[in-house]
Amino acid sequence: MSLHGLSLLAGQTGQPGGKRFRAANPATGQSIEPDFHEASLAEASAALEAAAIAFADTRVRSGADRARLLETMATEIEALGDELLQRAQAETGLPLARLTGERGRTCGQLRLFAQVVREGSWVDARIDPAQPARQPLPRADLRRMLVALGPVVVFGSSNFPLAFSAAGGDTASALAAGCPVVVKAHRAHPGTAELVATALQRAISACGFPPATYSLIHGGGSTLGIALVKHPATAAVGFTGSHAAGRALFDAAAARPHPIPVFAEMSSLNPLFVLPGAQAERAAAIAQGLLGSFTLGVGQFCTKPGLVFVTRGADTDAFLQKLAEVVRAAPCGTMLTSGIREAFLENRNRVTAVADVRVLATGSAPGRPERTEAEPSVATTSARTFLANPVLATEAFGPFTLVVVAEDAAELVACAQALEGQLTATVHGDADDLEASGALLDALERVAGRVVINGFPTGVEVCPAMNHGGPYPATTDVRFTSVGTAAILRFARPVCFQGYPDSLLPSALQDANPLGLLRMVDGKPSRDPVTRG
Amino acid sequence: MSLHGLSLLAGQTGQPGGKRFRAANPATGQSIEPDFHEASLAEASAALEAAAIAFADTRVRSGADRARLLETMATEIEALGDELLQRAQAETGLPLARLTGERGRTCGQLRLFAQVVREGSWVDARIDPAQPARQPLPRADLRRMLVALGPVVVFGSSNFPLAFSAAGGDTASALAAGCPVVVKAHRAHPGTAELVATALQRAISACGFPPATYSLIHGGGSTLGIALVKHPATAAVGFTGSHAAGRALFDAAAARPHPIPVFAEMSSLNPLFVLPGAQAERAAAIAQGLLGSFTLGVGQFCTKPGLVFVTRGADTDAFLQKLAEVVRAAPCGTMLTSGIREAFLENRNRVTAVADVRVLATGSAPGRPERTEAEPSVATTSARTFLANPVLATEAFGPFTLVVVAEDAAELVACAQALEGQLTATVHGDADDLEASGALLDALERVAGRVVINGFPTGVEVCPAMNHGGPYPATTDVRFTSVGTAAILRFARPVCFQGYPDSLLPSALQDANPLGLLRMVDGKPSRDPVTRG
Repeated sequence: MSLHGLSLLAGQTGQPGGKRFRAANPATGQSIEPDFHEASLAEASAALEAAAIAFADTRVRSGADRARLLETMATEIEALGDELLQRAQAETGLPLARLTGERGRTCGQLRLFAQVVREGSWVDARIDPAQPARQPLPRADLRRMLVALGPVVVFGSSNFPLAFSAAGGDTASALAAGCPVVVKAHRAHPGTAELVATALQRAISACGFPPATYSLIHGGGSTLGIALVKHPATAAVGFTGSHAAGRALFDAAAARPHPIPVFAEMSSLNPLFVLPGAQAERAAAIAQGLLGSFTLGVGQFCTKPGLVFVTRGADTDAFLQKLAEVVRAAPCGTMLTSGIREAFLENRNRVTAVADVRVLATGSAPGRPERTEAEPSVATTSARTFLANPVLATEAFGPFTLVVVAEDAAELVACAQALEGQLTATVHGDADDLEASGALLDALERVAGRVVINGFPTGVEVCPAMNHGGPYPATTDVRFTSVGTAAILRFARPVCFQGYPDSLLPSALQDANPLGLLRMVDGKPSRDPVTRG
Repeated sequence: MSLHGLSLLAGQTGQPGGKRFRAANPATGQSIEPDFHEASLAEASAALEAAAIAFADTRVRSGADRARLLETMATEIEALGDELLQRAQAETGLPLARLTGERGRTCGQLRLFAQVVREGSWVDARIDPAQPARQPLPRADLRRMLVALGPVVVFGSSNFPLAFSAAGGDTASALAAGCPVVVKAHRAHPGTAELVATALQRAISACGFPPATYSLIHGGGSTLGIALVKHPATAAVGFTGSHAAGRALFDAAAARPHPIPVFAEMSSLNPLFVLPGAQAERAAAIAQGLLGSFTLGVGQFCTKPGLVFVTRGADTDAFLQKLAEVVRAAPCGTMLTSGIREAFLENRNRVTAVADVRVLATGSAPGRPERTEAEPSVATTSARTFLANPVLATEAFGPFTLVVVAEDAAELVACAQALEGQLTATVHGDADDLEASGALLDALERVAGRVVINGFPTGVEVCPAMNHGGPYPATTDVRFTSVGTAAILRFARPVCFQGYPDSLLPSALQDANPLGLLRMVDGKPSRDPVTRG
């Protein structure tokens, strides 16, 4: 399949003529054909206006219809075969095995959201039947459920060209809720995005949804992004990327005449605490696991542990030695783009330039700029230095972590309490450590969206119990997750139907419970039909 | 009980010395003893810092503990007896019967939230047990629940001195979630607020909660309000009031280094549609019901129907005549404050000053300014004029409604589609009307948080299925309700616990399900214990 390099606007290709750009293969530095054409602001606006019209249709589609759409999308993505993986590899430098896994995750989450909306109870249906004889006043029949919010703008991420991009978790959950989606493709993998968008459009056509259920827009810079967020038809925004960009979108959304929610997943250090018993019990295994976690995807994961805290004890030097040893043996890796590599080096150097920060070890060979490589490295400092230098909590998005050594448990807790919002926090400890770690866990449960014990934060499971979110600046909305089935709740709002005859109610709220949902009836969960008083 | 006129800061009275003010009896214009003392910014800050410390305790209290606190608060408010009602009557001019009912509602919602947190399933517990043998990768044990957000600042409303004020729905739902609360008392009823706050503090003391679980602050002007919203310890804000004030708080919260959610319930016209069959069938009953609804509380309800749309038909003149007749017979009423009265007259006059708007009827006697009175009135215009003059959708907070006559069903739908966000929308129709009203209901379900058929929007039931919210400018966050049990969701966030040993988990997530919650286990609702793999 040859790529046209144009935006896909409500089923039609956009106009050529905008500024052109190409993807580059980070592993070779060479640009990749074809040219891609930036969409105009008028095209972006037209895509959103078409999405607003499509919304009149998508919002009332049954869960079964939406499930079929999501499943067909997964099938069509799979049908792209190796071409998709090869293009993604060329554009990102990521290994085929990783991309194969990521495709599985992408299609898996489309199918998981299909299950959620086919089953249907996610709408949190609540029915309080009329009480006409109640004194002093009768109660009206009241029924509430969640309905779709409206067109959603999604910004593709750099680091997950499939799972957080054209058909990633934001897209899947917004479509599942009944919202049309307009994706701004990430400039680093426009061909991957075009292939995926074409597959989605085939699914939309096959399932009889309006073409404007989905559009993909190429472009760059903040002007287009801000225009998408400020468009009156936009009802919500999903974003994964840097703090600066996420905050700019959030600020633009908050300054609208009618503000809208922005779900920006931005920056996180993902602190990992290694308590004394764990150091004694399994220093080598933790060092190896930590290396694997902070270098996974060349350190370009939102959940990469970028800060490690240890309490000084008899085994601390051995742990640090073991960590230095595995890092020294680790190869460098190709980063996603030269811009990401440069930002990584700059942020890493800001940390290592602080007095009393010592580089403990670097990888087996230095990264070559012409191959966009970076070598893994680890530095160390004292808790006192960490607490005195907020710059040490700078996220360096790449294969680097900073080990902070606390003199005792109290100083360790002080470090935890000094942290800003995080996606994750992790504790390694033996049974005695954990028994004594109440204050530490309390601090971490307050600052993070997910707390991991004796594991590693990378590898975000897509399931009902996942929470991928956290207090600011990890995200702009601590109340929601961007991974897992609860992500659908971002794109819905409650509506209460009072005094409706049964025939005018959405089927989720009808007396007979034709969808078989678990509903809350008179405050109690039930799948039973409702009898009117 | 004699009033001290001071703020109540974490169980202690504030310092006198700030600017003084008094409440005024709107029915007489006379000021009421004693003087109240505005809190200093330092006192406001100290209250929030104390709340942040108290939060370490309140967030881990059991649902049973929090339930006992809420129930004791209700009992203590009731124990204030007639003194509370008399003070509230003097400060607001509201009739004793209304205030008695409102006290019942206030205590009722405290007890309802007590039920919700004692039962406990509101935390939306989700458990995905470990799958150690899964290929290609094992799954960790993942458990998620909602936890309290942090200290909440609540702004007391003018129009519900009990139910949306010192111990209103925002306070009750925030305390239920486990959040300490700092209330900025409304300046129009400071004595009522002091009495209620004293009752709450007695309950806090009796239940062994930290005194800073609740503080009440006196003050006025935007400086104090903005300072409360901008304080680093503040985690969320509840507000009921004007659009200008709500938007200012929202903007301040969005501009914080770490933005926080603001739940501002601001302005709504609550459009009510009377379809031809309903006009024919029960013009008199609808006219009478409408009068009751738009003059309830002298028109000072968030859900007051301020716009009425009718399609012109054989019975329209008769309906308008009947409406004029009942309005002409209706007495004037005392409004809450002279400022509210002046704003009402100004906004009403802005509407009636538009060319082609005709005053249809005014009440039996003109309101006397010295008694803060306003007379009910109704005006009428054409749909064409309505669509051409956005000023006609100005909320006039008081006993006034504008009847808009559409030439046909299409024009009626066009009016519905032109509306901004609303708390409620209402349709009166007979069976044939409703059968044919798909486009109208669709438009209203998109623009409003609650749609009422053949009823009136005033009288907001406090129950699980209620939604009191809506698209902007009705509220600043369409995803949440401020009335009903779902209001607790505003003040909570999810946390995922990964790989936790059972003993370190919150009881809501423990294997044995000691609280007997309805949880989602492996994606399916269950009250069963969980077996670890």
